[in-house]
Amino acid sequence: MGGVGHTYKDSGVDIETGNKIVRGIKKILRESGSHRGASSHIGAFAAGYDVSRLNILNPILYFSVDGVGTKLKIAFMTNKHDTVGIDLVAMSANDILVSGARPFVFQDYISFSKLDEEVIYDIIRGIVKGCEMATCELTGGETAEMPGFYGDGEYDLAGFMAGAVDRHNAVEGKRIAAGDAIVGIASSGLHSNGYSLARKVLFEELGLTVDDPFENATLGEELLKPTKIYVQSVLKLIKIYPVSAMANITGGGFSDNIPRILPPGVEASIKIDSWPVPPIFDLIRTKGAVSDFEMYRTFNMGIGFVLIVNSSAAKRVVSILEDLGEKAYVIGTVGKQLGFERITLV
Amino acid sequence: MGGVGHTYKDSGVDIETGNKIVRGIKKILRESGSHRGASSHIGAFAAGYDVSRLNILNPILYFSVDGVGTKLKIAFMTNKHDTVGIDLVAMSANDILVSGARPFVFQDYISFSKLDEEVIYDIIRGIVKGCEMATCELTGGETAEMPGFYGDGEYDLAGFMAGAVDRHNAVEGKRIAAGDAIVGIASSGLHSNGYSLARKVLFEELGLTVDDPFENATLGEELLKPTKIYVQSVLKLIKIYPVSAMANITGGGFSDNIPRILPPGVEASIKIDSWPVPPIFDLIRTKGAVSDFEMYRTFNMGIGFVLIVNSSAAKRVVSILEDLGEKAYVIGTVGKQLGFERITLV
Repeated sequence: MGGVGHTYKDSGVDIETGNKIVRGIKKILRESGSHRGASSHIGAFAAGYDVSRLNILNPILYFSVDGVGTKLKIAFMTNKHDTVGIDLVAMSANDILVSGARPFVFQDYISFSKLDEEVIYDIIRGIVKGCEMATCELTGGETAEMPGFYGDGEYDLAGFMAGAVDRHNAVEGKRIAAGDAIVGIASSGLHSNGYSLARKVLFEELGLTVDDPFENATLGEELLKPTKIYVQSVLKLIKIYPVSAMANITGGGFSDNIPRILPPGVEASIKIDSWPVPPIFDLIRTKGAVSDFEMYRTFNMGIGFVLIVNSSAAKRVVSILEDLGEKAYVIGTVGKQLGFERITLV
Repeated sequence: MGGVGHTYKDSGVDIETGNKIVRGIKKILRESGSHRGASSHIGAFAAGYDVSRLNILNPILYFSVDGVGTKLKIAFMTNKHDTVGIDLVAMSANDILVSGARPFVFQDYISFSKLDEEVIYDIIRGIVKGCEMATCELTGGETAEMPGFYGDGEYDLAGFMAGAVDRHNAVEGKRIAAGDAIVGIASSGLHSNGYSLARKVLFEELGLTVDDPFENATLGEELLKPTKIYVQSVLKLIKIYPVSAMANITGGGFSDNIPRILPPGVEASIKIDSWPVPPIFDLIRTKGAVSDFEMYRTFNMGIGFVLIVNSSAAKRVVSILEDLGEKAYVIGTVGKQLGFERITLV
């Protein structure tokens, strides 16, 4: 059709490179044999998901969307991009898990201005690994080239999860009662929350770098540790032992996420010496002169997921979780609400 | 718990403002009476979606994730943010619609570094309106404050859609045959694709501004026109008259999206004078010296959605669509593939 002039490529968007990236992503998906249902990242006819495959009589669907937050900055600083995809899946998977739902489909959104192809593939490799851990399929996604939005080599990620549970097994927190015990499952570190504060203290105030040694590794490695995905152990646990409620310790940290799930009239009393707080939190607290109040409402403080159970079962729940490979602790109790606070740290 | 030191707010993330925004969003959702199922933007216990509410015997689920691309830059330039949410919903809704699926749940991701609260509310108002047009519920979303990622007042959006159709009504393109007619439904303008090229030509090369007059309005208003959401008319049409296949004209423009849905051995022949190309495309083509080849593989050229139907029904399909309020045209035919090309523009 002739004519010399502007092309889309001139303007910063390269459809041919885009198509090449789609092919690269498809290859990664094909090579990850575990995803029977994984289809193209961008397909003409997206494969539908037949609800009968869920094998659930009365399915209730749960959806979650989330990002990784400024933990991405650590990936930029260390130029290591193959684990933030695990974080991305974890954020939504643990969110859905709170209702007792099993994740079955995940889709990602990767947005950038100028990004090396290999970085995109590394991100996808992390997502694929996260989907394996969360027992779900990566059925689609979008790689959005946005000239002028991001710094060179920087990107943002969003993830979308669908999960399902039978109507009769959905965990809705209605059973919570004064006297219940609170069980916490260990986190792997910061997970994906509080990085703006952590970076400010560690890098700006203390002048540390990602290459500085920290606990037999580097500070960068510590800060990039993937968020734990609790799907497999928690779904096994709640088949054996029903729980009253669960909370994902995410934005708002330890203090904000537990009160949210409590019915009126009760409060959580947490013994903060009942589990080991990982060294990274102590470093931020002591060297950064961050108050306890601020620490517990910003970070998970070593507890990534919380279960509320009948007190008579607390020890058994901990032992089942330990058998499933988790570190778990009885960290507190639910009691009658006495004052204004919904959570007391003692 | 005492101690003076860093707070999360110092580091650029303000949980209290975040909670205030969540309350503001909840208010907008409550006020939009049409969303019975719309729950909190960020809820402790997300409401599940009972599959039985779909009223579909053998439901197949379809999922889509997409963004608005650099059309967002026009919103930044005009400081008008209450329509990009419609675009966001449209991108996923029209994508799912291609399979004959009705959208039922939407969730959004809004990412920014520093953003006026009112801008967030305007974005949400657009999303709520888009969800009404797409007949789906906004059941959740994430507002991600990412210090250092975006320019002041700038943001990125991603949207996630779930839709469903009965197994026996899923449109999979298997019926396409040589001799079929191709029907196009008019777009409202650029929709959400090709903005990097459009901005380069209009603003950089021609030196126009968003305030310049264009067709009884301003150029900014033209460029911000919301993407059409074809859900209601197309779902009504395919109940009356079954189609062989459908294509959403999106990234890759007119030329790339039609061949993708064709089975091997056939090609699409398009009469490019069979519909009126809106003036905005002519402006970009003539003043920007962009080739036809580039125009048709970047922009929708006035056709936002394409249906492939039995040739005997083409006129009836057009007339049904016109009755439903759309502008529609028979724009071409499917024929035996003769050469290498899967689409010929004549």
